Amino acid sequence: MESLGERLAAIAGTCPPPIPVRPVVAVFAGDHGVLSEGVTPWPQAVTAQMVANFLSGGAAINVIAREVGARVVVVDVGVATPIPGLEAFSVGSGGGEAGFRAANVRLGTGNLTAEPAMSTAEADEALDVGASIAAQLVAEGADCLVTGDMGIGNTTPSAALIAAIADRSVGDVTGRGTGISDEALALKISAISRGLERAAGALGVGVTGLAAVPARDLVAQVGGLEIAALAGFVIGGAAARVPVIVDGVVALAGALVASRLAPGVVGYLVAGHRSTEPGASAALEQLELDPLLDLGLRLGEGTGACLALPCVRAAARILNSMATFGDAGVASLQS
Amino acid sequence: MESLGERLAAIAGTCPPPIPVRPVVAVFAGDHGVLSEGVTPWPQAVTAQMVANFLSGGAAINVIAREVGARVVVVDVGVATPIPGLEAFSVGSGGGEAGFRAANVRLGTGNLTAEPAMSTAEADEALDVGASIAAQLVAEGADCLVTGDMGIGNTTPSAALIAAIADRSVGDVTGRGTGISDEALALKISAISRGLERAAGALGVGVTGLAAVPARDLVAQVGGLEIAALAGFVIGGAAARVPVIVDGVVALAGALVASRLAPGVVGYLVAGHRSTEPGASAALEQLELDPLLDLGLRLGEGTGACLALPCVRAAARILNSMATFGDAGVASLQS
Repeated sequence: MESLGERLAAIAGTCPPPIPVRPVVAVFAGDHGVLSEGVTPWPQAVTAQMVANFLSGGAAINVIAREVGARVVVVDVGVATPIPGLEAFSVGSGGGEAGFRAANVRLGTGNLTAEPAMSTAEADEALDVGASIAAQLVAEGADCLVTGDMGIGNTTPSAALIAAIADRSVGDVTGRGTGISDEALALKISAISRGLERAAGALGVGVTGLAAVPARDLVAQVGGLEIAALAGFVIGGAAARVPVIVDGVVALAGALVASRLAPGVVGYLVAGHRSTEPGASAALEQLELDPLLDLGLRLGEGTGACLALPCVRAAARILNSMATFGDAGVASLQS
Repeated sequence: MESLGERLAAIAGTCPPPIPVRPVVAVFAGDHGVLSEGVTPWPQAVTAQMVANFLSGGAAINVIAREVGARVVVVDVGVATPIPGLEAFSVGSGGGEAGFRAANVRLGTGNLTAEPAMSTAEADEALDVGASIAAQLVAEGADCLVTGDMGIGNTTPSAALIAAIADRSVGDVTGRGTGISDEALALKISAISRGLERAAGALGVGVTGLAAVPARDLVAQVGGLEIAALAGFVIGGAAARVPVIVDGVVALAGALVASRLAPGVVGYLVAGHRSTEPGASAALEQLELDPLLDLGLRLGEGTGACLALPCVRAAARILNSMATFGDAGVASLQS
């Protein structure tokens, strides 16, 4: 708690640090061409359906955000199919339970085993979406940003990015996502391995050489639109000097990309929880972050990060309002 | 989160479970004769001084309880020295920031290396204090109980109880408490070992036979007044069918005692966090509880348990208000 308090003070440049009372969870949503490789049993349309669920306030992230006093904003940066009932939520940002931002860069990524997930121009555009949203939310009064994500299949590109950037074996960082079968897990590991080999070839390096490739090229080759946006979001939050609470493996893949683009961002991050995805632990280690919660969650959406908010607030509040031993008349150590 | 929600439903006997909106942290305070063995550099009077600090609202537990919307009640079950300024806080239970309950069983325990910490009658009385406070708080409207503790030196009897009940070596379960030196740690391990040998002799068993001794005899020999009260508190909470969020090593020692007196109580417990004390991990393992938070805390007072409250509330709220996939129009798995 003390080191968290110190981190918050360092982020704000003031001690005691401000208490984050207006946190916002931004849920970046995108789809993934790699779904055609059988990496998950969920159909692609679930991404758009879950976005609608966020907007109507019925998802886990809505419930948890209400519990901890955070606002939810959903950002379509790459959803492939129409969002059911979107028109009802599109009147300004307050039409539904959650705010909505339309910022679709493309209708889902390409299949990373066969082609780049996106062009570098699209990767830049997605990064810009995330950074602009962060800047805009802080300008509107947000004093703490929380990462969220939605994208059926998005633990696949996340594991690919973590394997490449943290230089780990694909098997070590690939998990069961929403709880896939052994067969789907084997297809997932195979797809990631083939994707990394294809990317290495396209970038003219060996697979182990991918760790040294510019991060935007890597995101374009094997990333996701919401992952690129999350990387930009982290950078935008750090630029605005607010703490960014990062969620699970997808957000951590984005944070790893961000750390390669702007190493100083790591000091602005707070790891919300330890997701059950093995790639999350690998990324946390690479970023040298200790997560606050260990809930055995693998839900994504920003739920784990959101649940860490009270800890972050308490850490700030302790530095603001706890009595010193002197104030409280507590004796000091015996000499 | 799902298993936590299920546990809350099982505790209440209703699904969805009630959302804990009126939680109370009870901080049981007591002193320890084993201080004369040099197990900590803090003077005994700090217990009473910290009780005064809780009552005036300046301690970490007050700050955290405010953050998560919990009420704090401080119970003197065995403080040895006068509580500074107590008269100002004694007008009813709402005189200060926190409520106060006077229930002193004796002015601190005996030195467990040389004599029983307390008589079995005193152990029973302290157990009753905890159980009555739990029943009273629930009768007053509390829907979730959180354990807190204060007692300079109280990680020493906690480690002794955990070593005895979980049948672990003293070295494995003894930690640095508030951060003691190597020298004090050696004195602490020695005091616990001698205390357990003395207790075994007094109870007519070998040291490894202590695991089978009735729990109240063990508490009387090597326990603490606040630890006995915490054991009673856990039992009282379970009897009233409310969840009891347990904090660190001291509360877990109490919970272990409670589990020996009434094995069914374990189902009513939620482990708030993983304290850095090694005895806490040993007790969690023995109780088969997975802690929610991992904050590297060793503060006691109930802080870690209190920070877990939003997770507990969110788990209940998800079962109450989250849309099903059917409700939300989300597609089911591909066959």
